Amino acid sequence: MKHPLNSHFKIGFLGAGQLARMSALQAFRYGMQVAVFSDRPENEPVQFMTPYSYSGSFDELDSMLEFAESCDVITLENEFIDSEILVQLQDKSGTPIYPSPKSFSLIENKLIEKQTFESAGIPVTPYKLIQSSGDLTDFGSAHGWPYMLKSSKGGYDGYGNETVRNGTEAIAAFEKLGGKAGRDILAEAFVDFTHELAVQVARNETGHVVYPCCETVQKNHICVAVKTPAPVSNEIQKRAQQLALKATKAIDGKGIYAYEFFLTTDGELLLNESAPRPHNSGHYTIEGCITSQFENHVRAVCGLPLGNTTLIKPAAVMINLLGTHNRDAFVEHAGVAVSEPDGHLHSYGKLQSKPGRKMGHFTLLGVEQEQVYKRALEVTKSIEI
Amino acid sequence: MKHPLNSHFKIGFLGAGQLARMSALQAFRYGMQVAVFSDRPENEPVQFMTPYSYSGSFDELDSMLEFAESCDVITLENEFIDSEILVQLQDKSGTPIYPSPKSFSLIENKLIEKQTFESAGIPVTPYKLIQSSGDLTDFGSAHGWPYMLKSSKGGYDGYGNETVRNGTEAIAAFEKLGGKAGRDILAEAFVDFTHELAVQVARNETGHVVYPCCETVQKNHICVAVKTPAPVSNEIQKRAQQLALKATKAIDGKGIYAYEFFLTTDGELLLNESAPRPHNSGHYTIEGCITSQFENHVRAVCGLPLGNTTLIKPAAVMINLLGTHNRDAFVEHAGVAVSEPDGHLHSYGKLQSKPGRKMGHFTLLGVEQEQVYKRALEVTKSIEI
Repeated sequence: MKHPLNSHFKIGFLGAGQLARMSALQAFRYGMQVAVFSDRPENEPVQFMTPYSYSGSFDELDSMLEFAESCDVITLENEFIDSEILVQLQDKSGTPIYPSPKSFSLIENKLIEKQTFESAGIPVTPYKLIQSSGDLTDFGSAHGWPYMLKSSKGGYDGYGNETVRNGTEAIAAFEKLGGKAGRDILAEAFVDFTHELAVQVARNETGHVVYPCCETVQKNHICVAVKTPAPVSNEIQKRAQQLALKATKAIDGKGIYAYEFFLTTDGELLLNESAPRPHNSGHYTIEGCITSQFENHVRAVCGLPLGNTTLIKPAAVMINLLGTHNRDAFVEHAGVAVSEPDGHLHSYGKLQSKPGRKMGHFTLLGVEQEQVYKRALEVTKSIEI
Repeated sequence: MKHPLNSHFKIGFLGAGQLARMSALQAFRYGMQVAVFSDRPENEPVQFMTPYSYSGSFDELDSMLEFAESCDVITLENEFIDSEILVQLQDKSGTPIYPSPKSFSLIENKLIEKQTFESAGIPVTPYKLIQSSGDLTDFGSAHGWPYMLKSSKGGYDGYGNETVRNGTEAIAAFEKLGGKAGRDILAEAFVDFTHELAVQVARNETGHVVYPCCETVQKNHICVAVKTPAPVSNEIQKRAQQLALKATKAIDGKGIYAYEFFLTTDGELLLNESAPRPHNSGHYTIEGCITSQFENHVRAVCGLPLGNTTLIKPAAVMINLLGTHNRDAFVEHAGVAVSEPDGHLHSYGKLQSKPGRKMGHFTLLGVEQEQVYKRALEVTKSIEI
């Protein structure tokens, strides 16, 4: 591999959305070149940022090969590519992929993921692989109704998940999620929680760094806001950070990882989800921390020393700007947000807006958490996209 | 003009070097598209960051027209394009250019620049337009030898300047700078100064913001480091900021401007140079201020409200990373700098390094100015490029 601070070094992103875009902005800061592979027909955010765009299918090795061969290192912005294909792509192109296909294989499948983390001593939400319709009712009896059915692969922001309230719904959802077609379906218990927390970890051969513990505020399984530090005790924050680091080590991760936890009403931390990539819960780090998750993503996969994750101000709040209309993307009525001192507006450059689509975000830094949160909601409430 | 927060909005940069590159990174943050026009044959930094690259000559209107027509607004990263051509380009393409050709015309020529600022009550270094060889000796007699001869147009980082110690040298330099060929040549007195200071100002129809006053440390007329805040009294800092704002108003500036001052041994501030663009003296603002000069550049020319310029930490030091070799660009031995907490390495992605060429910079934030400066020098001293 060329040295990453050589101006001929090219980092490749599989996936061309906002996560790759924000990482690419950091790669440019280091003088790197950027290539991107998209599996979508429309223009994706990163494609406006480089002359080196490729497109095709994540399922077809050959369609990714020219892209892969042109890069010095490849990284990913989602979990939708099969680790088997990544192994082949890495072998055939000779270009290293980080996170490695090996560590990727340990979390791409929710069943293996849970087993891996459990074995490492990390508490996870109660779950079971459904192997018969009897399992569907047994799980409800054991852990209570409603519970969740999840496809073991390919879920994202609530897609691929179904909430079921009784045996009939469970059977229908099992079929809808592809259980009858042979897809592994997991049952997962709802847990009573007081907070949903998240922590990012960056790790490579030079060491590791752990980000502050934040709270994610969710509506309909979609993150709408993030508060850092999370309004929980220092002890809980520290424990979430320890578990996140432990999880990263358990999969021998090289890259940036995000872990989402439930803080149960009993004060227990249960690992809910993990992501081998920059994560919406870490967008606040762009202005909120000395080194952002995107910069540490680039550093980690390129083998550079990792950057300091200290918060710059006592409180950081991130508000997701979700699409409000079906139209050409346009962040309207954002004047108040743009004018807010220490407010930071980001638009992802997606051409098309649709209700609920992640179009941008707004970060506000300050001193007192609840005041900052209140103000961030206030200055973004009139925004239409 | 389309609204700048519309994802179809395209900002165009005339000039494709590091200043345009760092501004383009901010434009991407706002979801904008970026186009670039370069007058150089080799690949320039911004050309790696967009599918929309154009090239040709700054002297030929037609070669810039397709570029200009594809943009919603155009801005510049240098002073090498004649304001007359900018007027024509704006008229013919229908695309607005900021800073406007009108305010550009007031500073592209050092003679007009000095007259403009003098008329606005801003003290400038003593100067004279040379109209005869007698003027060359008279100026030396009046203001002392040595003094500087400067071409009224096109100077940059010491190019286009000559230091002359006597009448013979003055005549030779006058000829070398193109005086005999009809170019306007200015004589400028050396002033005894204790510090060279700089201030950036952003301004548009929504208002203006002024950056902290910094000190530029120069070697052979090239800036090697910048310290913010400048180690001078608050009163001097404030006065430099006032003069910088006054100067921006004098040329009705819309965009980002930088002003360099001498603080004379008598405690007087004299305006030395101005630049209608982001400036090396403001690179520290990327991590050092809430809103960087590059972000305010983009905001200003797009008509967005301007961002807060407050320093994030009490002290910021920027070290220029100049080329040390003739070779493929490669920031070598930078591990210590990359590892430094609150140190921020930037490489401009230029493919070719040569001694003295501006290849990147390093910013270090901290509490105590001289300690931060010492540490910044220490962690960058082994870097080779």
